[in-house]
Amino acid sequence: MLKADEWCAQQLGYRFRDPALLEAALTHRSASRLNYERLEFLGDSVLNFVVALLTFQQYPAAPEGDLSRYRAALVSSTSLSAVAGPLGLGDQLRLGSGELKTGGHRRDSILADSLEALFGAIYLDSGLDAAAEVIRRLFGPRLGQLPAAEALKDPKTRLQEEVQARGLELPQYMLDEIGGEPHEQWFVASCEVPALGLRSTGEGSSRRRAEQEAAQGVLAALRRAPQEK
Amino acid sequence: MLKADEWCAQQLGYRFRDPALLEAALTHRSASRLNYERLEFLGDSVLNFVVALLTFQQYPAAPEGDLSRYRAALVSSTSLSAVAGPLGLGDQLRLGSGELKTGGHRRDSILADSLEALFGAIYLDSGLDAAAEVIRRLFGPRLGQLPAAEALKDPKTRLQEEVQARGLELPQYMLDEIGGEPHEQWFVASCEVPALGLRSTGEGSSRRRAEQEAAQGVLAALRRAPQEK
Repeated sequence: MLKADEWCAQQLGYRFRDPALLEAALTHRSASRLNYERLEFLGDSVLNFVVALLTFQQYPAAPEGDLSRYRAALVSSTSLSAVAGPLGLGDQLRLGSGELKTGGHRRDSILADSLEALFGAIYLDSGLDAAAEVIRRLFGPRLGQLPAAEALKDPKTRLQEEVQARGLELPQYMLDEIGGEPHEQWFVASCEVPALGLRSTGEGSSRRRAEQEAAQGVLAALRRAPQEK
Repeated sequence: MLKADEWCAQQLGYRFRDPALLEAALTHRSASRLNYERLEFLGDSVLNFVVALLTFQQYPAAPEGDLSRYRAALVSSTSLSAVAGPLGLGDQLRLGSGELKTGGHRRDSILADSLEALFGAIYLDSGLDAAAEVIRRLFGPRLGQLPAAEALKDPKTRLQEEVQARGLELPQYMLDEIGGEPHEQWFVASCEVPALGLRSTGEGSSRRRAEQEAAQGVLAALRRAPQEK
Protein backbone atom coordinates (compact mmCIF):
# COMPACT_ATOMS: atom_id res chain seq x y z
CA MET A 1 0.00 0.00 0.00
CA LEU A 2 1.13 3.53 -0.77
CA LYS A 3 2.10 5.85 2.02
CA ALA A 4 -0.51 8.54 2.57
CA ASP A 5 1.45 11.43 1.08
CA GLU A 6 2.33 9.45 -2.06
CA TRP A 7 -1.26 8.29 -2.40
CA CYS A 8 -2.49 11.87 -2.08
CA ALA A 9 -0.01 13.18 -4.65
CA GLN A 10 -0.94 10.46 -7.14
CA GLN A 11 -4.71 10.42 -6.67
CA LEU A 12 -5.55 14.00 -5.73
CA GLY A 13 -2.62 15.65 -7.46
CA TYR A 14 -1.76 17.49 -4.28
CA ARG A 15 1.26 17.26 -1.98
CA PHE A 16 0.79 18.46 1.61
CA ARG A 17 3.27 20.81 3.27
CA ASP A 18 1.95 19.81 6.69
CA PRO A 19 1.60 16.01 6.89
CA ALA A 20 -0.33 16.28 10.17
CA LEU A 21 -3.25 17.82 8.27
CA LEU A 22 -3.32 14.92 5.83
CA GLU A 23 -3.15 12.44 8.66
CA ALA A 24 -6.04 14.06 10.54
CA ALA A 25 -8.17 14.11 7.38
CA LEU A 26 -7.74 10.36 7.05
CA THR A 27 -8.47 9.55 10.70
CA HIS A 28 -11.91 8.54 11.94
CA ARG A 29 -12.90 9.51 15.46
CA SER A 30 -12.90 5.84 16.43
CA ALA A 31 -9.11 5.86 15.96
CA SER A 32 -8.02 9.13 17.57
CA ARG A 33 -9.08 12.35 19.14
CA LEU A 34 -7.09 14.03 16.34
CA ASN A 35 -9.58 13.07 13.66
CA TYR A 36 -11.27 14.51 10.60
CA GLU A 37 -14.40 15.95 12.18
CA ARG A 38 -13.49 19.63 12.34
CA LEU A 39 -11.78 19.43 8.95
CA GLU A 40 -14.93 17.86 7.53
CA PHE A 41 -16.96 20.82 8.78
CA LEU A 42 -14.62 23.21 7.01
CA GLY A 43 -14.20 21.05 3.89
CA ASP A 44 -17.94 20.71 3.45
CA SER A 45 -18.26 24.48 3.12
CA VAL A 46 -15.24 24.70 0.79
CA LEU A 47 -16.74 22.00 -1.44
CA ASN A 48 -20.17 23.63 -1.42
CA PHE A 49 -18.72 26.98 -2.40
CA VAL A 50 -16.48 25.63 -5.18
CA VAL A 51 -19.24 23.44 -6.62
CA ALA A 52 -21.69 26.34 -6.44
CA LEU A 53 -19.24 28.43 -8.42
CA LEU A 54 -18.64 25.66 -10.98
CA THR A 55 -22.36 25.15 -11.58
CA PHE A 56 -22.94 28.92 -11.69
CA GLN A 57 -20.30 29.22 -14.44
CA GLN A 58 -21.28 26.05 -16.31
CA TYR A 59 -24.98 26.96 -16.53
CA PRO A 60 -25.10 30.72 -17.17
CA ALA A 61 -28.81 30.70 -17.95
CA ALA A 62 -30.07 28.22 -15.35
CA PRO A 63 -32.50 29.54 -12.73
CA GLU A 64 -31.58 29.31 -9.06
CA GLY A 65 -33.72 26.22 -8.45
CA ASP A 66 -31.86 24.24 -11.11
CA LEU A 67 -28.48 25.38 -9.80
CA SER A 68 -29.45 24.21 -6.32
CA ARG A 69 -30.47 20.82 -7.67
CA TYR A 70 -27.24 20.44 -9.65
CA ARG A 71 -25.16 21.31 -6.64
CA ALA A 72 -27.14 19.00 -4.35
CA ALA A 73 -26.62 16.13 -6.79
CA LEU A 74 -22.86 16.76 -6.95
CA VAL A 75 -22.21 17.11 -3.22
CA SER A 76 -24.58 14.41 -2.00
CA SER A 77 -23.10 11.71 0.17
CA THR A 78 -23.73 9.25 -2.69
CA SER A 79 -21.77 11.40 -5.14
CA LEU A 80 -18.93 11.94 -2.67
CA SER A 81 -18.49 8.26 -1.87
CA ALA A 82 -18.66 7.43 -5.58
CA VAL A 83 -15.78 9.86 -6.15
CA ALA A 84 -13.83 8.63 -3.10
CA GLY A 85 -14.13 4.91 -3.87
CA PRO A 86 -12.07 4.72 -7.10
CA LEU A 87 -9.39 6.91 -5.51
CA GLY A 88 -8.69 4.12 -3.05
CA LEU A 89 -9.42 6.44 -0.15
CA GLY A 90 -10.82 3.53 1.85
CA ASP A 91 -7.40 1.89 2.07
CA GLN A 92 -5.87 5.05 3.50
CA LEU A 93 -8.34 5.54 6.33
CA ARG A 94 -7.36 5.06 9.95
CA LEU A 95 -10.28 3.46 11.73
CA GLY A 96 -10.69 2.18 15.28
CA SER A 97 -11.20 -1.52 15.79
CA GLY A 98 -14.96 -1.10 16.15
CA GLU A 99 -15.22 0.54 12.73
CA LEU A 100 -12.82 -1.71 10.83
CA LYS A 101 -15.54 -4.19 9.94
CA THR A 102 -18.00 -1.49 9.01
CA GLY A 103 -19.59 -2.13 5.66
CA GLY A 104 -22.13 -0.75 3.25
CA HIS A 105 -23.84 2.53 3.95
CA ARG A 106 -21.84 3.29 7.09
CA ARG A 107 -18.57 2.86 5.21
CA ASP A 108 -19.74 5.02 2.31
CA SER A 109 -20.58 7.81 4.69
CA ILE A 110 -17.09 7.62 6.26
CA LEU A 111 -15.54 7.84 2.79
CA ALA A 112 -17.66 10.87 1.97
CA ASP A 113 -16.78 12.59 5.25
CA SER A 114 -13.06 11.94 4.90
CA LEU A 115 -13.06 13.27 1.33
CA GLU A 116 -14.66 16.50 2.55
CA ALA A 117 -12.07 16.63 5.34
CA LEU A 118 -9.30 16.35 2.71
CA PHE A 119 -10.68 19.44 0.96
CA GLY A 120 -10.68 21.28 4.31
CA ALA A 121 -7.11 20.14 4.99
CA ILE A 122 -5.88 21.26 1.56
CA TYR A 123 -7.56 24.62 2.12
CA LEU A 124 -5.74 25.08 5.44
CA ASP A 125 -2.49 23.82 3.94
CA SER A 126 -2.42 25.97 0.79
CA GLY A 127 -5.54 28.10 0.46
CA LEU A 128 -8.64 28.12 -1.63
CA ASP A 129 -7.12 27.93 -5.11
CA ALA A 130 -5.37 24.64 -4.33
CA ALA A 131 -8.54 23.12 -2.87
CA ALA A 132 -10.62 24.38 -5.79
CA GLU A 133 -8.19 22.88 -8.27
CA VAL A 134 -8.47 19.42 -6.68
CA ILE A 135 -12.25 19.68 -6.46
CA ARG A 136 -12.45 20.77 -10.11
CA ARG A 137 -10.36 17.79 -11.20
CA LEU A 138 -12.47 15.31 -9.21
CA PHE A 139 -15.94 16.70 -9.87
CA GLY A 140 -15.50 18.28 -13.31
CA PRO A 141 -16.40 15.08 -15.19
CA ARG A 142 -19.60 14.74 -13.15
CA LEU A 143 -20.51 18.35 -13.76
CA GLY A 144 -20.65 17.68 -17.50
CA GLN A 145 -22.80 14.58 -17.07
CA LEU A 146 -25.61 15.87 -14.89
CA PRO A 147 -29.11 14.75 -15.82
CA ALA A 148 -31.54 17.47 -16.89
CA ALA A 149 -32.66 19.59 -13.95
CA GLU A 150 -36.18 18.30 -14.57
CA ALA A 151 -35.11 14.74 -13.78
CA LEU A 152 -33.59 15.85 -10.47
CA LYS A 153 -36.90 17.22 -9.26
CA ASP A 154 -38.90 15.16 -6.82
CA PRO A 155 -42.47 14.09 -7.71
CA LYS A 156 -44.16 16.69 -5.45
CA THR A 157 -42.22 19.49 -7.15
CA ARG A 158 -42.95 18.18 -10.64
CA LEU A 159 -46.64 17.74 -9.89
CA GLN A 160 -46.90 21.24 -8.46
CA GLU A 161 -45.29 22.68 -11.59
CA GLU A 162 -47.53 20.70 -13.91
CA VAL A 163 -50.62 21.85 -12.05
CA GLN A 164 -49.48 25.47 -11.94
CA ALA A 165 -48.72 25.38 -15.66
CA ARG A 166 -52.37 24.49 -16.24
CA GLY A 167 -53.48 27.35 -14.01
CA LEU A 168 -55.13 25.00 -11.52
CA GLU A 169 -55.23 24.94 -7.74
CA LEU A 170 -52.25 23.31 -6.01
CA PRO A 171 -52.30 19.60 -5.13
CA GLN A 172 -53.58 18.81 -1.65
CA TYR A 173 -51.85 16.35 0.64
CA MET A 174 -53.42 14.52 3.53
CA LEU A 175 -51.96 12.07 5.96
CA ASP A 176 -54.47 9.22 6.10
CA GLU A 177 -52.99 6.67 8.43
CA ILE A 178 -50.11 6.02 10.77
CA GLY A 179 -49.33 2.57 12.01
CA GLY A 180 -46.52 0.47 13.39
CA GLU A 181 -44.36 0.60 16.49
CA PRO A 182 -42.74 3.84 17.71
CA HIS A 183 -39.43 2.99 16.07
CA GLU A 184 -40.98 1.70 12.88
CA GLN A 185 -43.90 3.93 12.11
CA TRP A 186 -45.55 3.60 8.74
CA PHE A 187 -47.37 6.34 6.89
CA VAL A 188 -50.13 6.42 4.33
CA ALA A 189 -50.74 9.71 2.57
CA SER A 190 -52.95 10.81 -0.26
CA CYS A 191 -52.53 13.44 -2.91
CA GLU A 192 -55.41 15.01 -4.73
CA VAL A 193 -55.83 17.48 -7.57
CA PRO A 194 -59.54 18.25 -7.24
CA ALA A 195 -59.82 20.22 -10.49
CA LEU A 196 -58.66 17.20 -12.47
CA GLY A 197 -60.53 14.64 -10.40
CA LEU A 198 -57.24 12.83 -9.73
CA ARG A 199 -56.28 11.23 -6.46
CA SER A 200 -53.67 8.70 -5.44
CA THR A 201 -52.26 7.29 -2.23
CA GLY A 202 -48.75 6.34 -1.27
CA GLU A 203 -47.02 4.82 1.68
CA GLY A 204 -43.61 4.82 3.23
CA SER A 205 -41.51 4.99 6.35
CA SER A 206 -41.89 8.75 6.57
CA ARG A 207 -44.63 11.19 5.81
CA ARG A 208 -42.48 12.73 3.13
CA ARG A 209 -41.91 9.40 1.37
CA ALA A 210 -45.60 8.57 1.49
CA GLU A 211 -46.49 11.95 -0.02
CA GLN A 212 -43.86 11.62 -2.75
CA GLU A 213 -45.25 8.23 -3.72
CA ALA A 214 -48.79 9.62 -3.77
CA ALA A 215 -47.65 12.54 -5.96
CA GLN A 216 -45.92 10.08 -8.30
CA GLY A 217 -49.23 8.23 -8.65
CA VAL A 218 -51.08 11.41 -9.59
CA LEU A 219 -48.33 12.36 -12.06
CA ALA A 220 -48.64 8.96 -13.74
CA ALA A 221 -52.43 9.32 -13.95
CA LEU A 222 -52.01 12.83 -15.36
CA ARG A 223 -49.84 11.48 -18.16
CA ARG A 224 -52.29 8.73 -19.00
CA ALA A 225 -55.20 11.17 -19.03
CA PRO A 226 -56.04 12.90 -22.33
CA GLN A 227 -54.84 16.51 -22.39
CA GLU A 228 -57.54 19.03 -21.73
CA LYS A 229 -58.13 21.79 -24.18
CA MET B 1 -32.75 58.38 -0.27
CA LEU B 2 -29.17 57.52 -1.14
CA LYS B 3 -28.32 56.21 -4.54
CA ALA B 4 -27.52 52.50 -4.44
CA ASP B 5 -23.77 52.81 -4.94
CA GLU B 6 -23.45 55.47 -2.23
CA TRP B 7 -25.60 53.42 0.10
CA CYS B 8 -23.45 50.34 -0.52
CA ALA B 9 -20.21 52.23 0.04
CA GLN B 10 -21.50 53.71 3.31
CA GLN B 11 -23.23 50.67 4.77
CA LEU B 12 -21.22 47.75 3.41
CA GLY B 13 -17.93 49.57 2.98
CA TYR B 14 -17.71 48.34 -0.58
CA ARG B 15 -17.82 50.20 -3.89
CA PHE B 16 -18.81 48.18 -6.97
CA ARG B 17 -16.80 48.34 -10.19
CA ASP B 18 -19.76 46.94 -12.12
CA PRO B 19 -22.96 48.77 -11.08
CA ALA B 20 -25.10 46.20 -12.94
CA LEU B 21 -24.13 43.58 -10.36
CA LEU B 22 -25.23 45.82 -7.51
CA GLU B 23 -28.47 46.60 -9.27
CA ALA B 24 -29.25 42.92 -9.88
CA ALA B 25 -28.53 42.07 -6.22
CA LEU B 26 -31.13 44.63 -5.14
CA THR B 27 -33.80 43.53 -7.60
CA HIS B 28 -36.56 41.09 -6.68
CA ARG B 29 -37.91 38.81 -9.39
CA SER B 30 -41.24 40.63 -9.20
CA ALA B 31 -39.48 43.70 -10.66
CA SER B 32 -37.30 42.27 -13.40
CA ARG B 33 -35.96 39.21 -15.09
CA LEU B 34 -32.51 40.55 -14.17
CA ASN B 35 -32.93 39.88 -10.47
CA TYR B 36 -31.00 38.59 -7.50
CA GLU B 37 -31.88 34.90 -7.67
CA ARG B 38 -28.72 33.48 -9.24
CA LEU B 39 -26.56 35.85 -7.21
CA GLU B 40 -28.34 34.66 -4.09
CA PHE B 41 -27.43 31.05 -4.93
CA LEU B 42 -23.79 32.02 -5.24
CA GLY B 43 -23.79 34.40 -2.28
CA ASP B 44 -25.33 31.80 0.00
CA SER B 45 -22.36 29.52 -0.59
CA VAL B 46 -19.86 32.38 -0.18
CA LEU B 47 -21.48 33.33 3.13
CA ASN B 48 -21.56 29.73 4.34
CA PHE B 49 -17.92 29.25 3.54
CA VAL B 50 -16.74 32.50 5.12
CA VAL B 51 -18.83 31.99 8.26
CA ALA B 52 -17.63 28.37 8.53
CA LEU B 53 -14.08 29.64 8.41
CA LEU B 54 -14.75 32.38 10.99
CA THR B 55 -16.33 29.93 13.45
CA PHE B 56 -13.56 27.38 12.81
CA GLN B 57 -10.96 30.00 13.72
CA GLN B 58 -12.91 31.54 16.60
CA TYR B 59 -13.56 28.21 18.34
CA PRO B 60 -10.38 26.17 17.92
CA ALA B 61 -11.50 23.48 20.37
CA ALA B 62 -15.17 23.20 19.49
CA PRO B 63 -16.38 19.86 18.13
CA GLU B 64 -17.98 19.71 14.70
CA GLY B 65 -21.54 19.62 16.06
CA ASP B 66 -21.05 22.90 17.91
CA LEU B 67 -19.45 24.55 14.88
CA SER B 68 -22.44 23.51 12.77
CA ARG B 69 -24.82 24.99 15.30
CA TYR B 70 -22.87 28.27 15.47
CA ARG B 71 -22.83 28.57 11.73
CA ALA B 72 -26.52 27.71 11.40
CA ALA B 73 -27.38 30.41 13.97
CA LEU B 74 -25.31 33.02 12.10
CA VAL B 75 -26.60 32.32 8.58
CA SER B 76 -30.24 31.65 9.46
CA SER B 77 -32.81 33.74 7.67
CA THR B 78 -33.59 35.41 11.01
CA SER B 79 -29.96 36.40 11.52
CA LEU B 80 -29.62 37.63 7.94
CA SER B 81 -32.68 39.83 8.07
CA ALA B 82 -31.59 41.18 11.46
CA VAL B 83 -28.30 42.20 9.86
CA ALA B 84 -29.95 43.59 6.73
CA GLY B 85 -32.61 45.65 8.51
CA PRO B 86 -30.38 48.26 10.25
CA LEU B 87 -28.38 48.70 7.02
CA GLY B 88 -31.47 50.14 5.41
CA LEU B 89 -31.36 47.46 2.72
CA GLY B 90 -35.15 47.47 2.53
CA ASP B 91 -35.17 51.02 1.13
CA GLN B 92 -32.80 50.03 -1.66
CA LEU B 93 -34.78 47.06 -2.94
CA ARG B 94 -36.50 47.12 -6.29
CA LEU B 95 -39.78 45.28 -5.93
CA GLY B 96 -42.65 44.72 -8.35
CA SER B 97 -45.99 46.30 -7.54
CA GLY B 98 -47.33 43.04 -6.12
CA GLU B 99 -44.50 42.82 -3.60
CA LEU B 100 -44.40 46.47 -2.57
CA LYS B 101 -46.99 45.97 0.12
CA THR B 102 -45.40 42.78 1.41
CA GLY B 103 -44.89 42.82 5.14
CA GLY B 104 -43.62 40.73 7.98
CA HIS B 105 -42.09 37.35 7.35
CA ARG B 106 -42.23 37.63 3.58
CA ARG B 107 -40.36 40.91 3.68
CA ASP B 108 -37.73 39.56 6.07
CA SER B 109 -37.04 36.69 3.73
CA ILE B 110 -36.57 39.09 0.79
CA LEU B 111 -34.11 41.13 2.87
CA ALA B 112 -32.17 37.96 3.76
CA ASP B 113 -32.08 36.79 0.13
CA SER B 114 -30.95 40.16 -1.20
CA LEU B 115 -28.19 40.37 1.40
CA GLU B 116 -26.89 36.98 0.29
CA ALA B 117 -27.10 38.18 -3.31
CA LEU B 118 -24.97 41.20 -2.41
CA PHE B 119 -22.25 38.86 -1.13
CA GLY B 120 -22.42 36.92 -4.39
CA ALA B 121 -22.25 40.14 -6.38
CA ILE B 122 -19.22 41.40 -4.44
CA TYR B 123 -17.52 38.05 -5.00
CA LEU B 124 -18.08 38.32 -8.77
CA ASP B 125 -17.05 41.98 -8.78
CA SER B 126 -13.81 41.67 -6.77
CA GLY B 127 -13.23 38.11 -5.55
CA LEU B 128 -13.41 36.24 -2.31
CA ASP B 129 -11.28 38.49 -0.11
CA ALA B 130 -13.51 41.49 -0.73
CA ALA B 131 -16.66 39.48 0.02
CA ALA B 132 -15.08 37.93 3.12
CA GLU B 133 -14.10 41.37 4.40
CA VAL B 134 -17.67 42.67 4.14
CA ILE B 135 -19.07 39.50 5.75
CA ARG B 136 -16.55 39.73 8.58
CA ARG B 137 -17.51 43.33 9.27
CA LEU B 138 -21.25 42.55 9.32
CA PHE B 139 -21.20 39.25 11.19
CA GLY B 140 -18.14 39.64 13.40
CA PRO B 141 -20.05 41.25 16.27
CA ARG B 142 -22.59 38.41 16.23
CA LEU B 143 -19.84 35.81 16.20
CA GLY B 144 -18.60 37.09 19.56
CA GLN B 145 -22.08 37.06 21.08
CA LEU B 146 -23.25 33.56 20.27
CA PRO B 147 -25.08 31.72 23.04
CA ALA B 148 -23.42 28.57 24.38
CA ALA B 149 -23.64 25.69 21.90
CA GLU B 150 -25.80 23.88 24.44
CA ALA B 151 -28.48 26.55 24.22
CA LEU B 152 -28.59 26.24 20.43
CA LYS B 153 -29.51 22.57 20.62
CA ASP B 154 -33.12 21.67 20.08
CA PRO B 155 -35.05 19.83 22.84
CA LYS B 156 -34.89 16.42 21.09
CA THR B 157 -31.10 16.64 20.85
CA ARG B 158 -30.73 17.78 24.45
CA LEU B 159 -33.03 15.04 25.73
CA GLN B 160 -31.17 12.39 23.76
CA GLU B 161 -27.87 13.56 25.23
CA GLU B 162 -29.23 13.62 28.78
CA VAL B 163 -30.60 10.11 28.41
CA GLN B 164 -27.41 8.79 26.83
CA ALA B 165 -25.33 10.38 29.59
CA ARG B 166 -27.31 8.28 32.08
CA GLY B 167 -26.73 5.16 30.00
CA LEU B 168 -30.42 4.69 29.31
CA GLU B 169 -32.33 3.67 26.21
CA LEU B 170 -33.14 6.47 23.76
CA PRO B 171 -36.40 8.41 24.00
CA GLN B 172 -39.24 7.03 21.92
CA TYR B 173 -41.47 9.23 19.80
CA MET B 174 -44.93 8.41 18.62
CA LEU B 175 -47.35 10.35 16.50
CA ASP B 176 -50.67 10.13 18.33
CA GLU B 177 -53.08 12.20 16.33
CA ILE B 178 -53.48 14.17 13.17
CA GLY B 179 -56.35 16.53 12.65
CA GLY B 180 -57.39 19.55 10.66
CA GLU B 181 -57.88 20.31 7.01
CA PRO B 182 -55.36 19.25 4.35
CA HIS B 183 -53.74 22.68 4.29
CA GLU B 184 -53.80 23.12 8.03
CA GLN B 185 -53.02 19.76 9.55
CA TRP B 186 -52.35 19.60 13.25
CA PHE B 187 -50.14 17.04 14.98
CA VAL B 188 -50.04 15.55 18.43
CA ALA B 189 -46.96 13.55 19.35
CA SER B 190 -45.72 11.94 22.50
CA CYS B 191 -42.24 11.37 23.83
CA GLU B 192 -41.42 8.70 26.36
CA VAL B 193 -38.35 7.64 28.30
CA PRO B 194 -39.55 4.27 29.64
CA ALA B 195 -36.60 3.70 31.97
CA LEU B 196 -37.44 6.92 33.83
CA GLY B 197 -41.18 6.48 33.68
CA LEU B 198 -41.46 9.89 31.98
CA ARG B 199 -43.84 10.75 29.19
CA SER B 200 -45.11 13.97 27.72
CA THR B 201 -47.12 15.09 24.73
CA GLY B 202 -46.77 18.06 22.46
CA GLU B 203 -48.62 19.55 19.55
CA GLY B 204 -47.88 21.72 16.61
CA SER B 205 -48.35 22.43 12.94
CA SER B 206 -45.77 19.80 11.96
CA ARG B 207 -44.78 16.46 13.31
CA ARG B 208 -41.35 17.86 14.13
CA ARG B 209 -42.77 20.75 16.15
CA ALA B 210 -45.05 18.41 18.07
CA GLU B 211 -42.15 16.10 18.89
CA GLN B 212 -39.94 18.98 19.99
CA GLU B 213 -42.64 20.21 22.33
CA ALA B 214 -43.09 16.70 23.73
CA ALA B 215 -39.33 16.37 24.27
CA GLN B 216 -39.33 19.75 26.02
CA GLY B 217 -41.99 18.44 28.39
CA VAL B 218 -39.92 15.38 29.28
CA LEU B 219 -36.81 17.54 29.76
CA ALA B 220 -38.72 19.75 32.18
CA ALA B 221 -40.00 16.72 34.10
CA LEU B 222 -36.48 15.32 34.19
CA ARG B 223 -35.21 18.50 35.84
CA ARG B 224 -37.98 18.50 38.40
CA ALA B 225 -37.37 14.83 39.22
CA PRO B 226 -34.82 14.03 41.93
CA GLN B 227 -31.53 12.78 40.48
CA GLU B 228 -31.11 9.05 40.58
CA LYS B 229 -28.10 7.63 42.31
